[in-house]
Amino acid sequence: MSEQRIVLAARPNGKPTGETFRYESFELTELKEGQVALESLYISVDPYMRGRMNDARSYSQPFEIDEPIHGGVVARVIESKSEGLKSGDVVVGMLDWATKVVVDAKTVRKIDEQIAPISTALGVLGMTGMTAYFGLLDIGNPQPGETVVVSAAAGAVGSIVGQIAKIKGARVVGIAGSDEKLQHLKADLGFDEVINYKTEDIREALDRTCPDGIDVYFENVGGEIGDAVLDRLNPFARVPVCGAISGYNAQQDIGPRVQSKLIIARARMQGFLVGDYGKRFKEAAEQLGQWVSEGKLQYEETIFEGFDRVPDAFLGLFDGSNTGKLLVKVK
Amino acid sequence: MSEQRIVLAARPNGKPTGETFRYESFELTELKEGQVALESLYISVDPYMRGRMNDARSYSQPFEIDEPIHGGVVARVIESKSEGLKSGDVVVGMLDWATKVVVDAKTVRKIDEQIAPISTALGVLGMTGMTAYFGLLDIGNPQPGETVVVSAAAGAVGSIVGQIAKIKGARVVGIAGSDEKLQHLKADLGFDEVINYKTEDIREALDRTCPDGIDVYFENVGGEIGDAVLDRLNPFARVPVCGAISGYNAQQDIGPRVQSKLIIARARMQGFLVGDYGKRFKEAAEQLGQWVSEGKLQYEETIFEGFDRVPDAFLGLFDGSNTGKLLVKVK
Repeated sequence: MSEQRIVLAARPNGKPTGETFRYESFELTELKEGQVALESLYISVDPYMRGRMNDARSYSQPFEIDEPIHGGVVARVIESKSEGLKSGDVVVGMLDWATKVVVDAKTVRKIDEQIAPISTALGVLGMTGMTAYFGLLDIGNPQPGETVVVSAAAGAVGSIVGQIAKIKGARVVGIAGSDEKLQHLKADLGFDEVINYKTEDIREALDRTCPDGIDVYFENVGGEIGDAVLDRLNPFARVPVCGAISGYNAQQDIGPRVQSKLIIARARMQGFLVGDYGKRFKEAAEQLGQWVSEGKLQYEETIFEGFDRVPDAFLGLFDGSNTGKLLVKVK
Repeated sequence: MSEQRIVLAARPNGKPTGETFRYESFELTELKEGQVALESLYISVDPYMRGRMNDARSYSQPFEIDEPIHGGVVARVIESKSEGLKSGDVVVGMLDWATKVVVDAKTVRKIDEQIAPISTALGVLGMTGMTAYFGLLDIGNPQPGETVVVSAAAGAVGSIVGQIAKIKGARVVGIAGSDEKLQHLKADLGFDEVINYKTEDIREALDRTCPDGIDVYFENVGGEIGDAVLDRLNPFARVPVCGAISGYNAQQDIGPRVQSKLIIARARMQGFLVGDYGKRFKEAAEQLGQWVSEGKLQYEETIFEGFDRVPDAFLGLFDGSNTGKLLVKVK
């Protein structure tokens, strides 16, 4: 019986479209020793994947034209030639966008289904949560009473960053683009202050919400929001740089240079990728799972149903209307 | 007998002039318990002092109008009411620009005259050397075989940065503004490669001299040189930000934003001030002194003679013709 997969049909100019993707049939290969056959359950669509659709130098290889797109997938083992996994186990890994795949067992990680719904392995207990966890704690290192500012605060990563900062005793200010989102951050997630960057003057709003300056800025957006925050850093401030989405579609991303700002504040800006923390994923997953089970860490998911909806879900990332983590439930 | 001191007469617009300074006579106060009277021997003039002549937020208080300017000074104890210092001792500290001063003994540090000429306490064994030492080693952390790029490489700090990087086994590329300086860096100080930013295309020159990318960039200048280096950072590169002199006189310091560059390279940019390393000055002074005495670390001084030459020396910082550390020998 043939399976379905999605390949990159053409590199998008600007926003991806339906032309970006193509469905193909393929046959599963025979299992070799150490391999498992997997049936996809949930597929994650993430903004960073847009970057891999370009043919440009970046931190990871570009997707190849006519080759399967791959990303975070939760799957069930349907056949195993590996000692570590058995049929029925649920795993997560970076897998092809396909209904089924055959991979080396060591490229996937088994999920404990007791901790939380398995879809969270792609969100709060997966790359999304770990991105928030390592960027905020390893680079930002917020201390009790410090002021932490998060941009894209209602996004999948930003909303977790703010909640972890609260767990660590910091004062948290979230920046987002709609009053509905801001209301949610304050009422449901415990943010101390919120800023609507679309309706407020960002500099005045930062002065209002951060009267004692800014100790940690979790950077998701860059652009003029980043410029304004970097002018208000306290001595020895830390700026984990996770994303710069405001510049992703810009021809030129030009703004005030940061060198003098960093000297004046003796501040640190540091780019990071969650993949570089592979050796500590277990620690992060355990801690995030504990916070979720204790009710300290909330998460939201928007779930599209059906393998045929993967392109729709991916395109949905760019209209800004969904909340929380965007997923596709394959069947 | 009255002494002489130099006060800030007016805040300069752009480059300082003779109008910026005024000489005044004053009487030394009586010593209280714990104080010492000092006779100035060498006065340091440094680019960072220009910033303190502005009335603007920065990392240190602005100099006040009609108040003495102060900076690094080497002085001899002429009277002491402190147990730790005796008449004849030579000390270094942040002192008024004056022929003599009375200060609390704990604000100055005694110099070991056996290690090197006392003037080096203001240069290679003083703030200049320590700026290079802490910025390069604490933030840059160069490893053997890594490529270290230094801008303003022939300056007082940059020339020491490059030599320490060589001691640590790195490959060192220096950027400076004259072929004479470049020749000196290569022939006398052991730099591996040099770039003349006035006559070469900086991006082509970086590609030529850094074929394996850049692991550490010691930032002294900012501007387009910084922009070009930041496009060539290797994974996990470190960028100690010491200065951004190209932007100091600019109305607007605008360039490509750094967020995406830092993510792609997972790089760290960190501003620092040598004053924040006070607890480790002893360690640095000992290590720098050892390297100087072993002949591994060379230094240059340009010395003006006479307290009346202090303004000339300071103005001399800005014409770029002097080499190494600029000092005034008071008498």
